[in-house]
Amino acid sequence: MKAVVKTKPEPGAELQEVDAPTPGPGEVLIKIAATSICGTDLHIYEWNDWAKSRIRIPQIMGHEFAGYVEEVGAEVHTVSPGDYVSAETHIYCGKCFLCHIGKAHICRNVEILGVDRDGSFAEYIVVPERVVWKNALDLPPKVASIREPFGNAVHAIKRAQVAGKRVLIFGDGTIGLMACAVAKALGAYSVWLVGLVKRRLELARALGADEAVNARAADPVAQVRKWTEGLGADVVLEMAGAEAAFRQALEAVRPGGRLIAFGLPPREVPLDIPQLVFKEVEVVGVVGRHIFGTWEQATRLLSRLDLSPLVTHELPLSEFQLGFEKLLRRAAIKVILYPGE
Amino acid sequence: MKAVVKTKPEPGAELQEVDAPTPGPGEVLIKIAATSICGTDLHIYEWNDWAKSRIRIPQIMGHEFAGYVEEVGAEVHTVSPGDYVSAETHIYCGKCFLCHIGKAHICRNVEILGVDRDGSFAEYIVVPERVVWKNALDLPPKVASIREPFGNAVHAIKRAQVAGKRVLIFGDGTIGLMACAVAKALGAYSVWLVGLVKRRLELARALGADEAVNARAADPVAQVRKWTEGLGADVVLEMAGAEAAFRQALEAVRPGGRLIAFGLPPREVPLDIPQLVFKEVEVVGVVGRHIFGTWEQATRLLSRLDLSPLVTHELPLSEFQLGFEKLLRRAAIKVILYPGE
Amino acid sequence: MKAVVKTKPEPGAELQEVDAPTPGPGEVLIKIAATSICGTDLHIYEWNDWAKSRIRIPQIMGHEFAGYVEEVGAEVHTVSPGDYVSAETHIYCGKCFLCHIGKAHICRNVEILGVDRDGSFAEYIVVPERVVWKNALDLPPKVASIREPFGNAVHAIKRAQVAGKRVLIFGDGTIGLMACAVAKALGAYSVWLVGLVKRRLELARALGADEAVNARAADPVAQVRKWTEGLGADVVLEMAGAEAAFRQALEAVRPGGRLIAFGLPPREVPLDIPQLVFKEVEVVGVVGRHIFGTWEQATRLLSRLDLSPLVTHELPLSEFQLGFEKLLRRAAIKVILYPGE
Amino acid sequence: MKAVVKTKPEPGAELQEVDAPTPGPGEVLIKIAATSICGTDLHIYEWNDWAKSRIRIPQIMGHEFAGYVEEVGAEVHTVSPGDYVSAETHIYCGKCFLCHIGKAHICRNVEILGVDRDGSFAEYIVVPERVVWKNALDLPPKVASIREPFGNAVHAIKRAQVAGKRVLIFGDGTIGLMACAVAKALGAYSVWLVGLVKRRLELARALGADEAVNARAADPVAQVRKWTEGLGADVVLEMAGAEAAFRQALEAVRPGGRLIAFGLPPREVPLDIPQLVFKEVEVVGVVGRHIFGTWEQATRLLSRLDLSPLVTHELPLSEFQLGFEKLLRRAAIKVILYPGE
Repeated sequence: MKAVVKTKPEPGAELQEVDAPTPGPGEVLIKIAATSICGTDLHIYEWNDWAKSRIRIPQIMGHEFAGYVEEVGAEVHTVSPGDYVSAETHIYCGKCFLCHIGKAHICRNVEILGVDRDGSFAEYIVVPERVVWKNALDLPPKVASIREPFGNAVHAIKRAQVAGKRVLIFGDGTIGLMACAVAKALGAYSVWLVGLVKRRLELARALGADEAVNARAADPVAQVRKWTEGLGADVVLEMAGAEAAFRQALEAVRPGGRLIAFGLPPREVPLDIPQLVFKEVEVVGVVGRHIFGTWEQATRLLSRLDLSPLVTHELPLSEFQLGFEKLLRRAAIKVILYPGE
Repeated sequence: MKAVVKTKPEPGAELQEVDAPTPGPGEVLIKIAATSICGTDLHIYEWNDWAKSRIRIPQIMGHEFAGYVEEVGAEVHTVSPGDYVSAETHIYCGKCFLCHIGKAHICRNVEILGVDRDGSFAEYIVVPERVVWKNALDLPPKVASIREPFGNAVHAIKRAQVAGKRVLIFGDGTIGLMACAVAKALGAYSVWLVGLVKRRLELARALGADEAVNARAADPVAQVRKWTEGLGADVVLEMAGAEAAFRQALEAVRPGGRLIAFGLPPREVPLDIPQLVFKEVEVVGVVGRHIFGTWEQATRLLSRLDLSPLVTHELPLSEFQLGFEKLLRRAAIKVILYPGE
Repeated sequence: MKAVVKTKPEPGAELQEVDAPTPGPGEVLIKIAATSICGTDLHIYEWNDWAKSRIRIPQIMGHEFAGYVEEVGAEVHTVSPGDYVSAETHIYCGKCFLCHIGKAHICRNVEILGVDRDGSFAEYIVVPERVVWKNALDLPPKVASIREPFGNAVHAIKRAQVAGKRVLIFGDGTIGLMACAVAKALGAYSVWLVGLVKRRLELARALGADEAVNARAADPVAQVRKWTEGLGADVVLEMAGAEAAFRQALEAVRPGGRLIAFGLPPREVPLDIPQLVFKEVEVVGVVGRHIFGTWEQATRLLSRLDLSPLVTHELPLSEFQLGFEKLLRRAAIKVILYPGE
Repeated sequence: MKAVVKTKPEPGAELQEVDAPTPGPGEVLIKIAATSICGTDLHIYEWNDWAKSRIRIPQIMGHEFAGYVEEVGAEVHTVSPGDYVSAETHIYCGKCFLCHIGKAHICRNVEILGVDRDGSFAEYIVVPERVVWKNALDLPPKVASIREPFGNAVHAIKRAQVAGKRVLIFGDGTIGLMACAVAKALGAYSVWLVGLVKRRLELARALGADEAVNARAADPVAQVRKWTEGLGADVVLEMAGAEAAFRQALEAVRPGGRLIAFGLPPREVPLDIPQLVFKEVEVVGVVGRHIFGTWEQATRLLSRLDLSPLVTHELPLSEFQLGFEKLLRRAAIKVILYPGE
């Protein structure tokens, strides 16, 4: 089968012809209908420090996808050939303390698709039965593919507790934009996005943001203070992964407010702890999605929200390089790859 | 009357003879029976950067106290001469957004006793009626005086949600020590304290800590990992106010755990945000006490816990210098001053 | 001044000329611009068992209102003549355990306007300064008058935790209808109302309900099961105050769901406790509003929601009898009385 | 093998020689070391209405046990022969909405050991791998057997949120008694038990209750009011399953308090809904245990609490009739049966 493989410890990836995988006991073989490129894939493509320390080559990249079950291995009881599915990308053990207390998404023994084992930028993928999610038949494959990152946005907004609140989001990437739509759908009183790219700010407004400001044109903290009579936003989500954004997020949140830490700044961020203390801010780290509570919530929201404006490019798998390049230049938001074309 | 006054913009303070205050409308005049020295008083005494920026001299220092109502001003309806009282030190406005949503302790217009107005290191103090708390008659004045910082410990432990949890406390100061006792009383499964002073570690154990370790003798993070099969503590309270402790606290808390930020590190602390994110840690700033929810909870706990071992020195007000010196050398834990002697 | 007074221990009320009240210390005299009739007023008018046991006659009725401060008594510091205000109707003591822990709305010593002291169906009313709420100047008096019951709906929906949920509301009275709008605004995924009056069901849909069903035409429990693949609604609010509705509410809520008890059935309701247990339902009693957290939340929502369709009748105070009659026949929803006309 | 079998649709059960079960795919065969009699077993033994409607005969009774894995079927990966285990008795599907949102204990497709399939009153039992729990090797079989009902008590107390609270428990059965110990361990300020049997009240005190009162000798509601200055208990747990207790529980809980509904009254209980509303009580249904969050919590508590006083009788399996008789007369608390003797 064709697959996009990380073959060398350097930037880039290659389209190769490799053997299709076969499902072992408890595993499912899925024919990929659509797969999408995530920020994590960019890190692996660019071969940053995190990728160097974590990825074993050669490995097939990718983890967001939708497809059809082609074959099931032994010991599989709840999935059948022909099922239209996506998958939770965090393969949890189900037996550790964290799995036991309902936090399988931060399982001590987690293995991640496309990071710790072969991924979805290929004609076929094999995943354990327990991470398979059956999609509604009328959900287009491109949307079913991006429901994994959509789940990130849903999980972050749920933990942010936005109902009736004034919400500030830093970051105009895919998750930040999705978060605008989710925050509105889950009852935020106001949603304000801070970003850098004009087209994305427009998209934020189209997705439901009440305001979208360019961090280069105006001081976001001053802006939020103006909108809130000096008080600050009830909830701030840091989804830019930038030191400046994180520090501004702490400035912009009101006393007694919540700051969702979602982005991954590349270096340590110096924080003014007394500010955090005197304001009694709650800084809440958020990663992944609840398995499968978030999937249930996302299923409902997907029936109401139109995520298709986020898909800016649809390409055959063979043109994956173009997709990566556009994303690296921030000229694309979500790129879908079709192995079948 | 006699009062300890901050008179000059430099380290130190003076015992002076000043006019006793008179209660205005809505105010209460209290004759001080016992007053105690807090870390904030040390900052003012030493005249650190925070003190320079906040304190207007001359001003009477001190805010922890117990005493008897001497006289009430006009418009006072719920307090009478002779009442045995302490006081909430955060004078809240009652009218701002934060007061309205039940967070008067972080009121936008807060005024703090001994910081923004004359304090309790004197024979008399005047406070607004609305911050007066009536003490049980059998509570000794020295304990009634330290119920204000005890409230800090209670509030921190309540927000830490310790029932059934393995709890790690950084800091062997008054609040860290009190927190050991409160955590045990509120159902912590294990309480471990990290400190620096042998005598205080012993006191931690006497107050209920299961273990008390010297941060200079052993790596607290390694120690906690050993006790928790590598998982980390469910809850960590940073009550040392030191950069190293804060960073260790983040290392020591388990995935999905809570980190209470209570101490005030003097400089910005560089934090590994991806660690916070991937572990889904909640960093919760905690300051003051709920007004008056924490006072109600503290009243119950005071009937069960013996705080007197924390009072290491009892001095006449005139010997306040000795108290300050002992505290600055960490040779005392809690120093009570008696204006009446 | 003119006032609607309950004068006799029997059904009815009288318009009388009485002395205008004068504000004592800590009190405020308000000239009523608009006042509205609540279900509680109907009980007093009809003189039901509860009214007989609680109301001391003669007493001026009414508690929902908006008006202008005419005069302030001694000891009033935060309200001035000319202020445009409404009032929290639960006059809390501020000193009991429940007030201390942030539950002043269920204060042990509560006194209710129009129930325990003279109310607002008059040209003037006197209330304590501490329950006065300043309205936005652009809020019409008729809306400012019904913000008190609107606060009930907001408080109930906040406690119901509706974001992302499928919500079923029993009762097409004022609060049930308001709750449809609030639930939608605070992120409910679906809102279904069960009522009895066609016109009200239409209004429910206009205010945001996805479905509004007539309890006489269809079995609400069966209907909800159909909509939820047999699971039940995530959240059910009982706002009808009827035994049948309460029992159906327990049937209709899904395992692990929430049932808000808001209505007041006139007799004890036999409940199937094992059903409640096996489904792990949470039945949450809700009354009044948080003072003043709900008022802050309501202020935001009032800037987004149009409540005017709920006002079906506007009358001069002298025609109060007509308003009561229409309400008793359920031919009106909200009736505004204007003392100034 | 020997087994206690419900063979006829009438009171009683029989010791029979039956074929030992064999583990199918995903199943585990366990040799029973100790098994204990639960209230549910009594209902089946007595053949009450619930048993008539639910139990298919013939069926082996029992569900609380500890034992050693004898053999594992195909597809079993995490359990091995020789493992010392107990089991969660709720066999959840893992695929329904409730399992997905973390509420597998109220799974829509739940199957219960000893109720819906053969149980543990036998030499061997077969259970699915996913409900097996590995015990600490030093936990005596009789304690490991009763950790299942202990989990009920832990789950109930966790949901009751007892830390710092005044807690009233109705019911001197096994769970009520265990709940005294758990409430104390998880930080309750006061624990008061209401029961009927003198010996059990003494045991409640031995397990940590501050007071244990006989409902026949004193009015529990009046008693609690006396202890709480008329306010009521912060938290009340109804673990008696009696109508009178449920009604008293609602009377005894303070405004803003929590009432845990755990017992199963045999008939509908008429409830005063306005009381529940005006007091803003939360009535929380509690059943089973979180799978496996409660097991983790219980593991910690078992290392601190001594449950052995609850085991009043230890019998060979062949003398099960004696155990049932003693329990039906309330002459025993917990009866352990040993198939190996």
